Amino acid sequence: MTLQGTLLIGQQAVTGTQADIVAVNPATGETLEPRYPGGSRAEVEKACQLAEAAFDQYRETSLEARAHFLETIAEEIEAIGADLTQRGVAETGLPEARLEGERGRTCGQLRLFASVVRAGEWLDLRHDPAQPDRQPMPRADLRQRHIPLGPVAVCGASIFPLAFSVAGGDTASALAAGCPVVVKGHSAHPGTSELVGRAIQRAAAKCNMPEGVFSLLFGSGRDIGQALVSDPRIKAVGFTGSRSGGMALMATAQARPEPIPVYAEMSSINPVFLFPEALQARGNKIAEGFVASLNMGAGQFCTNPGLVIGLKGADLDAFITTAEEAVKASGAQTMLTPGIHEAYQSGVSALSGQSSVKEVARGKAGDGPHSCQTGLFVASAQNFLNNDALQGEIFGAASLVIECADAQEMQRVADQLEGQLTITLQMDDGDLEAAKSLLPTLEQRAGRLLANGWPTGVEVGHAMVHGGPFPATSDSRTTSVGSAAIYRFLRPVCYQDLPAGLLPEVLRDDNPFKVSRLVDGKREG
Amino acid sequence: MTLQGTLLIGQQAVTGTQADIVAVNPATGETLEPRYPGGSRAEVEKACQLAEAAFDQYRETSLEARAHFLETIAEEIEAIGADLTQRGVAETGLPEARLEGERGRTCGQLRLFASVVRAGEWLDLRHDPAQPDRQPMPRADLRQRHIPLGPVAVCGASIFPLAFSVAGGDTASALAAGCPVVVKGHSAHPGTSELVGRAIQRAAAKCNMPEGVFSLLFGSGRDIGQALVSDPRIKAVGFTGSRSGGMALMATAQARPEPIPVYAEMSSINPVFLFPEALQARGNKIAEGFVASLNMGAGQFCTNPGLVIGLKGADLDAFITTAEEAVKASGAQTMLTPGIHEAYQSGVSALSGQSSVKEVARGKAGDGPHSCQTGLFVASAQNFLNNDALQGEIFGAASLVIECADAQEMQRVADQLEGQLTITLQMDDGDLEAAKSLLPTLEQRAGRLLANGWPTGVEVGHAMVHGGPFPATSDSRTTSVGSAAIYRFLRPVCYQDLPAGLLPEVLRDDNPFKVSRLVDGKREG
Repeated sequence: MTLQGTLLIGQQAVTGTQADIVAVNPATGETLEPRYPGGSRAEVEKACQLAEAAFDQYRETSLEARAHFLETIAEEIEAIGADLTQRGVAETGLPEARLEGERGRTCGQLRLFASVVRAGEWLDLRHDPAQPDRQPMPRADLRQRHIPLGPVAVCGASIFPLAFSVAGGDTASALAAGCPVVVKGHSAHPGTSELVGRAIQRAAAKCNMPEGVFSLLFGSGRDIGQALVSDPRIKAVGFTGSRSGGMALMATAQARPEPIPVYAEMSSINPVFLFPEALQARGNKIAEGFVASLNMGAGQFCTNPGLVIGLKGADLDAFITTAEEAVKASGAQTMLTPGIHEAYQSGVSALSGQSSVKEVARGKAGDGPHSCQTGLFVASAQNFLNNDALQGEIFGAASLVIECADAQEMQRVADQLEGQLTITLQMDDGDLEAAKSLLPTLEQRAGRLLANGWPTGVEVGHAMVHGGPFPATSDSRTTSVGSAAIYRFLRPVCYQDLPAGLLPEVLRDDNPFKVSRLVDGKREG
Repeated sequence: MTLQGTLLIGQQAVTGTQADIVAVNPATGETLEPRYPGGSRAEVEKACQLAEAAFDQYRETSLEARAHFLETIAEEIEAIGADLTQRGVAETGLPEARLEGERGRTCGQLRLFASVVRAGEWLDLRHDPAQPDRQPMPRADLRQRHIPLGPVAVCGASIFPLAFSVAGGDTASALAAGCPVVVKGHSAHPGTSELVGRAIQRAAAKCNMPEGVFSLLFGSGRDIGQALVSDPRIKAVGFTGSRSGGMALMATAQARPEPIPVYAEMSSINPVFLFPEALQARGNKIAEGFVASLNMGAGQFCTNPGLVIGLKGADLDAFITTAEEAVKASGAQTMLTPGIHEAYQSGVSALSGQSSVKEVARGKAGDGPHSCQTGLFVASAQNFLNNDALQGEIFGAASLVIECADAQEMQRVADQLEGQLTITLQMDDGDLEAAKSLLPTLEQRAGRLLANGWPTGVEVGHAMVHGGPFPATSDSRTTSVGSAAIYRFLRPVCYQDLPAGLLPEVLRDDNPFKVSRLVDGKREG
């Protein structure tokens, strides 16, 4: 498949007029063809106009038709074959197996949402039947369903070129909800984005979807993203990236004449609490698991374990010694972009420069231009509590161990944590009471709590929460991974005494799609 | 019961130190004893500190204990007896029957939320069981529940001294979710607020709730409200009031180091579409129903029908003539506060002053200092489309009829509507196709669509939506009336591989409270 270096606006391929986006192979520094001339506000305008025009038809597609569309996107992505994973490798420096895994995850996610659409739980159907004889006032017939918010802007993330990009979780859940999507592709992988975008384009045509259901724009800097988020036809935004990037989108969305929700997944250091019994019984094994999780994907995961908290003493010393060895043995890995690498370097330098922080170990230095040298650091809880800078995210394989004098100090560290995507407990049976006493604090600070595992690896299922209090995300009431992500793009509408002929089909008395519903507050089906 | 003129902070009664809040009987202009010295930031601080201290205990109260607490609040409010309705009448100028009705609604609402708490749907329980043998990677055990956000600030509304005030829908739904509540009582009805606040205080003591579960503050101007919303311990805000007031709270909430959700119900003119067959068949009856709805409570409802849209012609003329007669016969009614009356007067003057607007009729002028003289106006669709000012809310009994040249122009008026709480269709069988063609537009602009009724009168049930796109509310994804209002104060947490001893009780395998849940995405129970 020959890449054409174009934006995709509805069913059209459009060549941009602005500065070129050029992909760089981060492993070699070489630039990759073709160039992608960036879009202007005119293309944002056109994509939003098409999305709005598509909305009324797309949002009322049948559950089956919409599910089939999602499945067809998955098939079209798979049909690209090795061209996709090879281009992904070239644009990201990630190993091919990772791209293959990510493709599986992306297509699995689309199929999960197809099943979610069919099951119809997301409609949140409710019916309070009329009570014409109620005293002192009759009750009207009241029915409720969820409807989609409107066209959604998705900002592709650099860190998952497939699973959080053009056809990633934000796009899949918004399309599942009935929202047309305009993607601002990430400049780090335009070729991968074009391939996936064309797969969605083909699926839309095959399934007779209105063409504005999907568009893909490229653009330099934050211009296109900000223009998209400012467009009055856009009704919600999905974003995964930096805290500053997310905050900028939030500010833009709030400053609109009509403010809109922004779902920004931003910043998390994913604390790991080491409880005493577990540390004593299997500190070495925990240390090895920790460094493996830390190094995964050069640490470029939102759920990377960037903070470890334990009680100072011989067991923690032994843990640190094992971790030190593992870090020293860690090979260098190429980071995704020059910008990420630069931010990693300056983050690690800043941390090393803190007088209260001790460098424990660095991994092997690499030959490539953008390689990540793993870093392990240690600081006392006292210093952590007195210095907010020690809580900043360093995106990449760097982690800080916090030594607490006692359980009370561990509690104080927990109290002071910012919002997180995940918090991990390494604990044995004898640690139960200590874990119990910390749990209420941890629950208030994270979207996912896990025991005796590692936070990297986010299952795409129904019970997953990939979210959490600010600054982990801009909206803790939601998740960006898993089937519940669909609720981000929906709102309830109540229909009072509507004639049967006017009532949406899903709300009919006979429940034609056999969707679970609440009747007078009681669950049926 | 003797009013003491105090703030209620936890179980304490505290006399404020700032300028007095003094209630005024709007019917007579006389001031009412006692005076309420306003709170300062010190009292905001104390209330928030207690709320935070109460949170961990309160949020883990059993479903039964929390439901019983809500029911006890209802009992304690009822036990106040006529003192409550009489003080309410004195502070609002509303008739006693309205206060009695509102008390019934308020207590019914508390009991509805008690039943909602017991049913446990709000927990949104999900379980994806472990799959240890899955290839290529095992699946962890993943469970999800909703937990409360944290202490909630509620700003009492002037317009419903009971149902949207101290123990109103925001407080009831936040307490049901497991959130402690700090209310900023409305300065228009401090005595009514104190009576209800003390009822909640007694219920909290009787039910052995932690004292910080509820506090009630008074304060001049917006100081206390803004201080509350800025407090880092407050995690969400409920508000019903003006667009400018809601926007100010939204700005404060977004500017915090940790932004929080604001649920502001602000501004809606509740358009009524008159379809041709209905207008021809029963225009007179519709006109009478319309004016009755317009005049209800001196028009002081968020759902007051402030805009009527029909096709120009003899049938609409006849409708206007009947409405004109009914408006002229409308008696004056006392408005709730001098401020609301002043805003009504200036809103009506501004509308009358528009050269494109014709005054059709005014109701009878009143003798009282703050009486509302009903107003009916008419303008062409062309003028409406060219003048955003005609879409501004006038809070009170004033409505504007828009004459459309044809169905296309009616569609254009619908296209240009801002977000609304409700949109009403007056339609007969022959209007079905016309209504169908307009419906997608209307759905996008309102939280509730109703046919052949009137928007005033908001049922408190499970299928109700009292919400809608901006500026009707700050967050269209929710409702502030009805059982779904509880979801505003919750967020999901995922528990991965937690030992049974650490897992929240509601998530246990045996589902001890028999709550409906999703297991691998399939509904059980």
